[in-house]
Amino acid sequence: MESPNEERTGACRRVWRWLKSFPEKLWQKIVEFAWRLVKLGKEDPRRIVHSIKVGLTITLVSIFYYFEPVYDGLGDCAMWAVLTVIVVFEFSVGATLGRGLNRMLATLVAGALGVGAHRIATQLGGIGEPIVISVFVVLIAAIVTFMRFLPKMKARYDYGLMMFILTFCLISVSSYRDDDTIHLALKRLTTIIVGSCASVIMCICVWPVWIGVDLHNQIATNLEMLGSFLEGYADEYFKVSDEDGNSIDKSFLEGYKSVLTSKPSEENMANLARWEPRHGRFRYRHPWKQYLKVGTLARQCGYKVEALHGYLLSEMQTPLEVRNRLMEPCTMISKESSKALKELASTIRKMTKSSVPDLHVANSKAAAENLKSVLKSDWSKDVDLFEIIPGAAVASVLMEIATCTQQIAEAVLELESLANFKRPKPRVTPEDHLQVIQHGINGPHDHVITIDESSPTSGRNENSSTITR
Amino acid sequence: MESPNEERTGACRRVWRWLKSFPEKLWQKIVEFAWRLVKLGKEDPRRIVHSIKVGLTITLVSIFYYFEPVYDGLGDCAMWAVLTVIVVFEFSVGATLGRGLNRMLATLVAGALGVGAHRIATQLGGIGEPIVISVFVVLIAAIVTFMRFLPKMKARYDYGLMMFILTFCLISVSSYRDDDTIHLALKRLTTIIVGSCASVIMCICVWPVWIGVDLHNQIATNLEMLGSFLEGYADEYFKVSDEDGNSIDKSFLEGYKSVLTSKPSEENMANLARWEPRHGRFRYRHPWKQYLKVGTLARQCGYKVEALHGYLLSEMQTPLEVRNRLMEPCTMISKESSKALKELASTIRKMTKSSVPDLHVANSKAAAENLKSVLKSDWSKDVDLFEIIPGAAVASVLMEIATCTQQIAEAVLELESLANFKRPKPRVTPEDHLQVIQHGINGPHDHVITIDESSPTSGRNENSSTITR
Repeated sequence: MESPNEERTGACRRVWRWLKSFPEKLWQKIVEFAWRLVKLGKEDPRRIVHSIKVGLTITLVSIFYYFEPVYDGLGDCAMWAVLTVIVVFEFSVGATLGRGLNRMLATLVAGALGVGAHRIATQLGGIGEPIVISVFVVLIAAIVTFMRFLPKMKARYDYGLMMFILTFCLISVSSYRDDDTIHLALKRLTTIIVGSCASVIMCICVWPVWIGVDLHNQIATNLEMLGSFLEGYADEYFKVSDEDGNSIDKSFLEGYKSVLTSKPSEENMANLARWEPRHGRFRYRHPWKQYLKVGTLARQCGYKVEALHGYLLSEMQTPLEVRNRLMEPCTMISKESSKALKELASTIRKMTKSSVPDLHVANSKAAAENLKSVLKSDWSKDVDLFEIIPGAAVASVLMEIATCTQQIAEAVLELESLANFKRPKPRVTPEDHLQVIQHGINGPHDHVITIDESSPTSGRNENSSTITR
Repeated sequence: MESPNEERTGACRRVWRWLKSFPEKLWQKIVEFAWRLVKLGKEDPRRIVHSIKVGLTITLVSIFYYFEPVYDGLGDCAMWAVLTVIVVFEFSVGATLGRGLNRMLATLVAGALGVGAHRIATQLGGIGEPIVISVFVVLIAAIVTFMRFLPKMKARYDYGLMMFILTFCLISVSSYRDDDTIHLALKRLTTIIVGSCASVIMCICVWPVWIGVDLHNQIATNLEMLGSFLEGYADEYFKVSDEDGNSIDKSFLEGYKSVLTSKPSEENMANLARWEPRHGRFRYRHPWKQYLKVGTLARQCGYKVEALHGYLLSEMQTPLEVRNRLMEPCTMISKESSKALKELASTIRKMTKSSVPDLHVANSKAAAENLKSVLKSDWSKDVDLFEIIPGAAVASVLMEIATCTQQIAEAVLELESLANFKRPKPRVTPEDHLQVIQHGINGPHDHVITIDESSPTSGRNENSSTITR
């Protein structure tokens, strides 16, 4: 047993040790945090640019405040321009434009209404004035707050409705102390227009981040993720139980997971993209809805891929005989669907029409037919049903994926025409087609190498005549 | 051919007709909009209450502005209290508290920093002052804007970081015109505390909406949706191709779709719920993460349910013989998993421990074993593999669902202990258990009817000893 004295010394030592190690621990935390910030910047350098843009715009607008003539005109209200930049400037052009327009329009309408409310209230004068204004405020605030729950309003005008309440309250309530409400409303409108325009101009002119492009790329990435999974899946499924190859990188088997839950982010992006003006090859009314359609089909394909993934981990193993017979057609479907999806992704990314995906879709459909006939053929009678199930289930899901890929290809085709994708320089000859169909299992780049530049033109329609779409 | 005169008259008529019908069309639009609002209120009357609460709080706080003594102390800054209410008051307590605390803390820290920046700048004086302040503003705004990209920061402190930039700029920039920065910072802090506290108090005291309760209910609803699907699925699958019964209501087959994309909304709710104080049976540190875990497992089950749904629409039909042999065990798994999920949902909803789900989980596991042996048994040799596939695939997915249900039950059990669910008055006797296991296909309410209130106590542990968990 320690004496009380020794105990106290022990406690002191612990406290002392903690205090001694505290600066070191704090330093570690700071270093860790800094590293996380560095990583964040490396992941997407546009974030750094955005931060600098925000800082500069705020400073630029705050210069108004320092200039005597501007300050004499606007007074303390000049600060609103600075505050507007802070709340309006978002990462993407779409979001900034959406907030800016919402803020300006809401200020205009609410300012006018506020002035009107003040006029009505002053007719009464005395104690009646604040009462009438309070009644107006309760009514307007409650109704507009309720309107914010409407899904359509929430998606596009949520910020505007909040700004509407804010400006209305600001103008009508402060009219009690300052009779010159029109002047106040105008000053507020001017400063907010200055702040919003500064943000929008800075956002568009200096290294702009178009949310429409991000949506465009995300849809392509999602298709690529599904393609990557399917590319490696068949090898993984038909080999893994023979030999255990856990050492190789299998990250491609997990990439598709983000596709499954991408719905809300895609919808949000499409909502914001609608605010964006024409940029690059994206028009003002670019068919964003069609992107959502492709996204939805990709997710449905993702659910099937999730089922396939489940069979990788499943305990039930298919007997070797069954595996061997299923392997070829299954691999073919998987690889061809993968190529089709990757080509579709590249079609979207490059915004060029391409007939290559159709070939792979046709190949994968053909492989599905082949698989059907393999399954319909005679099987040795001593195979029991239970053992066949996992393999059969994988085969069945793969057949569905072939159908799903075709649907995605159709949606992308629709997107191509809606978004006016360019027709590329003709590069694939009918001979190449035949080759691809015959050696469908090879990579998509094989026939790119065998391209005959001098070959006669072969448009999409002639090429895809073999494909039912 | 019409003469130009007749043409003009025709055009005039069309314009006149349009003008005549315009008020009617406008009225239609207004009525439609009003109906949509009424529907919105009926769906969730808490929305109406929230809107009225917001309106009243704004008016209450604006009364400060009308009172001479308060106005004399705060001046125009009193308006900030009103604006704070508008931007802080959210639908749920969690969101309001989160925004309120973020706003107050950010104002405190940024106000102090702003005053400090002003002190440093005034040391230089003259043209140096705005330059030093501008440098500070660029630096602080850029760094804090960049920090907003950190996922952890974004989830909980996004609004606070924005408010930090806002207050810092407000204080430091306006210090150029008004040397009494400390006074300004204090006024801002005071008004923001008043506005935030008014919002939080109103939000908590008058018919509060706890986002934690919403999350709690949503997780339960998700399990119910999956349960409803599985309840009707087997009947639907094994009957639909025999007779075409499209006339009955099949909405239960679609309800689960919302489960698939619920991830972001659940995560958001969990983030907001962490701000909420103790309320009802929810503690301050309620295990919200465990809800997310149950939600993730429910989604995984949802993906399998999506696969099952696919087989309903699939063209390939299993031959009658196969169907008949698979029907019983498949129906059993489906119904028992359904009951287990629904009982788990009710366990969560009522926050009471229950051993009933375990029974159904055990039953569904037993049925899965039964299905396995049916599949392993001899099948007539003239059944071809291709025809068996859809049925076999459904069987295989159902077996996975049995496993998945067990995992969900385990996660809910963990939740029960983490969230201190109550132990209910003992209601199920070991005899009842036996009965449930024997007549597992009957509804969960059967043994509720046979409850023997006078039966000896039987805790969860003894009951669930037969179940592997």
